[in-house]
Amino acid sequence: MDASALAVIEGGGVTSAEGFTAAGVHAGFRANPHKRDLALVVADEPCPTAAVFTRNVFCAAPVRRNKRVLESAVEGESCGIIRAVAVNSGNANAATGEEGLAAAEEAGRIVAEAVGCPADEVLVCSTGVIGVQLPLEPFRTGVPEVHAALSRAGGADAAAAIMTTDTVSKQCAVSFSGDAVGHLGCMFTVGGMAKGSGMIMPDMATMIAVITTDVPLTAPDARAALKRAADVSFNKVTVDSDTSTNDTCILMASGAAAPESAPFQPGSPAFQLFEAALEEVCVHLARSMAKDGEGATKLVDVHVTGACTKEDADVAARTVANSPLVKTAIAGHDANWGRIAAALGRSGAVFRQEDVDISIMGIPVCKGGLALAFDEEEALRRFEEPEIVLDINLGAGDASTTVWTCDLTHDYITINGDYRT
Amino acid sequence: MDASALAVIEGGGVTSAEGFTAAGVHAGFRANPHKRDLALVVADEPCPTAAVFTRNVFCAAPVRRNKRVLESAVEGESCGIIRAVAVNSGNANAATGEEGLAAAEEAGRIVAEAVGCPADEVLVCSTGVIGVQLPLEPFRTGVPEVHAALSRAGGADAAAAIMTTDTVSKQCAVSFSGDAVGHLGCMFTVGGMAKGSGMIMPDMATMIAVITTDVPLTAPDARAALKRAADVSFNKVTVDSDTSTNDTCILMASGAAAPESAPFQPGSPAFQLFEAALEEVCVHLARSMAKDGEGATKLVDVHVTGACTKEDADVAARTVANSPLVKTAIAGHDANWGRIAAALGRSGAVFRQEDVDISIMGIPVCKGGLALAFDEEEALRRFEEPEIVLDINLGAGDASTTVWTCDLTHDYITINGDYRT
Repeated sequence: MDASALAVIEGGGVTSAEGFTAAGVHAGFRANPHKRDLALVVADEPCPTAAVFTRNVFCAAPVRRNKRVLESAVEGESCGIIRAVAVNSGNANAATGEEGLAAAEEAGRIVAEAVGCPADEVLVCSTGVIGVQLPLEPFRTGVPEVHAALSRAGGADAAAAIMTTDTVSKQCAVSFSGDAVGHLGCMFTVGGMAKGSGMIMPDMATMIAVITTDVPLTAPDARAALKRAADVSFNKVTVDSDTSTNDTCILMASGAAAPESAPFQPGSPAFQLFEAALEEVCVHLARSMAKDGEGATKLVDVHVTGACTKEDADVAARTVANSPLVKTAIAGHDANWGRIAAALGRSGAVFRQEDVDISIMGIPVCKGGLALAFDEEEALRRFEEPEIVLDINLGAGDASTTVWTCDLTHDYITINGDYRT
Repeated sequence: MDASALAVIEGGGVTSAEGFTAAGVHAGFRANPHKRDLALVVADEPCPTAAVFTRNVFCAAPVRRNKRVLESAVEGESCGIIRAVAVNSGNANAATGEEGLAAAEEAGRIVAEAVGCPADEVLVCSTGVIGVQLPLEPFRTGVPEVHAALSRAGGADAAAAIMTTDTVSKQCAVSFSGDAVGHLGCMFTVGGMAKGSGMIMPDMATMIAVITTDVPLTAPDARAALKRAADVSFNKVTVDSDTSTNDTCILMASGAAAPESAPFQPGSPAFQLFEAALEEVCVHLARSMAKDGEGATKLVDVHVTGACTKEDADVAARTVANSPLVKTAIAGHDANWGRIAAALGRSGAVFRQEDVDISIMGIPVCKGGLALAFDEEEALRRFEEPEIVLDINLGAGDASTTVWTCDLTHDYITINGDYRT
């Protein structure tokens, strides 16, 4: 698909698509009265919605509730008709047992009452500390408040409300014209928000992302598209190899940009353009997560080519991206490619060391498994860039992938050494 | 086997067993003239020797050479008749291609000439930076010097010479009487030295360990015993999930404590006692590595019980032990068991969250997957201990294991952020 057909919406987010309002307020899940901690996204009408969830066995109560609500037969995936998504930060409602599940259900009822819809048209997500029961009082007082604040301009506040250790909020939106794909005069939009930072190595979806679109879709088609997009975006991010208990990605499709249109048909030019837009939004949000990983100073692109299989490319890139030695070397601006080689060697990917080429920021440092002389001063200069690119060619086949991560710094230790205190 | 039959030799090491001398000198692999960087261990006579090596595809030149010398048909394992083991620190001779292989061969010839044996009775190990050609001059000048210094008292110097980022040298030895196992009046010894600290998650053996014994063994029996001992010791250690390119563990058996005896027969009481001694030495050295992991302030025992299978127990314990979030929490003296639960949940081990119990330093913090109220002050006090014990019961079966790791601190970042500079 021609990416030039997509236009980035400056400052766009979860309310950029037609048919959605959102807001974010301080409800009291967190002590700091200036930190928004409850987000609400509401569709003007109930709309086809898809989700992908964590596969962590210790999956949180809201994940269990949302899976039940969406009633899917496909493991780990779900779709249905949904009106509203509420997200609280400050408490993950994970490892909280039946009491936690009851709290998630009650939170859903509180939101449904405010919105004026059945509880089963509401999804509830939680993110924050694990193993503490979810307080319901902030929902009782906060939901009416956040509902009253709903607006087309509320995307930024919603994105701020789902942050935990994130240092910046994550949102983006892209639009495309329907002119060339059979929807003359229609402008379609895909936008979303996400949170990231720690406990980030999504196995299926990621932490929490809410994406909206005004494209007309059926729920199953939305689910299939979301699964594909998550696999090349959120599922390619790793901050610290720790898959969260709460990972959830939700896509809501209002169809409001072409209210008279039938749902886009999978395979059609219109659907392909939508998929390109969805992928662009997911990749943008995913890269934002890696860039804002806990303590990170650099976004790191691990690009693997020449692998025998897609699986080999993925495991090789992921092993490099998770290596503490590689990540600390990048933090130290050290082009220590030996650590990349060692990580590749233990990854399980099939290759011969004699066939491996490695470049760091475009500087070839290893050719055929051997050290190349390179200009260390120039390498140091290139390490000043905010995005570090590692190019690895295994010389074993044609498969490739990119995994995004970040460097490992003192601040990661500081942030996680006293998270609860 | 009754562990009380084993006696720890205070200050014992690689020369505690009869029939071995050792020494360690500064040969010039490292700039600091006060850092010993070349170790030599020599048996009085050629003796049955076994080794286990890294399975990293980027395995180092000395690993490739030693495998060839030991000519084993069994992948990743080798045995033969060996007279001497030389180990240099400061250069790993990894990712150095044919030139590196030729350097390893030449180093072997230099050692053989000094010792007065065939080159194929010499093993050469290297540890240090990856991707830099091994200089031979330090061998040419250092080998005669280290050979001249060989003595029964040289074990400590040898252990010091193989250190890289280790802060303490690692050696130990245990002995047992042959009286009860058919070798009246004989006292047998197993002793060894090892290095660890960084790039430590052995997949087969570990970084570099040299173990000697005066028990009479055949080379294949030594190999089988070493493989079993490595699997429950070195292969259960992880500092940073990074498997080295140079992992090597060598066992030399002089038989000098019972020169007239036939080799111990596998399955016999004498062999079982030897295996208990070997395991004790390997576990001691392995725990020393975890305790002295780069930047570590704590040794961490991750004890998993109630797993469905041995593999599940291992993957669950290893995932917890490698979790940066768990390791930083321990560094921060934070009994944040939610991170342990999240790591278990993504490990791939089969269990239900409702069945999981977790204790930290003997304090139950999670029962049936739910938070337990506990005395945070008491937990903080127990975190003052140098060894932190995590007890995890998955409630799914009867398999169990222990994996050793360390906490993740600012010093790990500092050490690895500027290793080469």
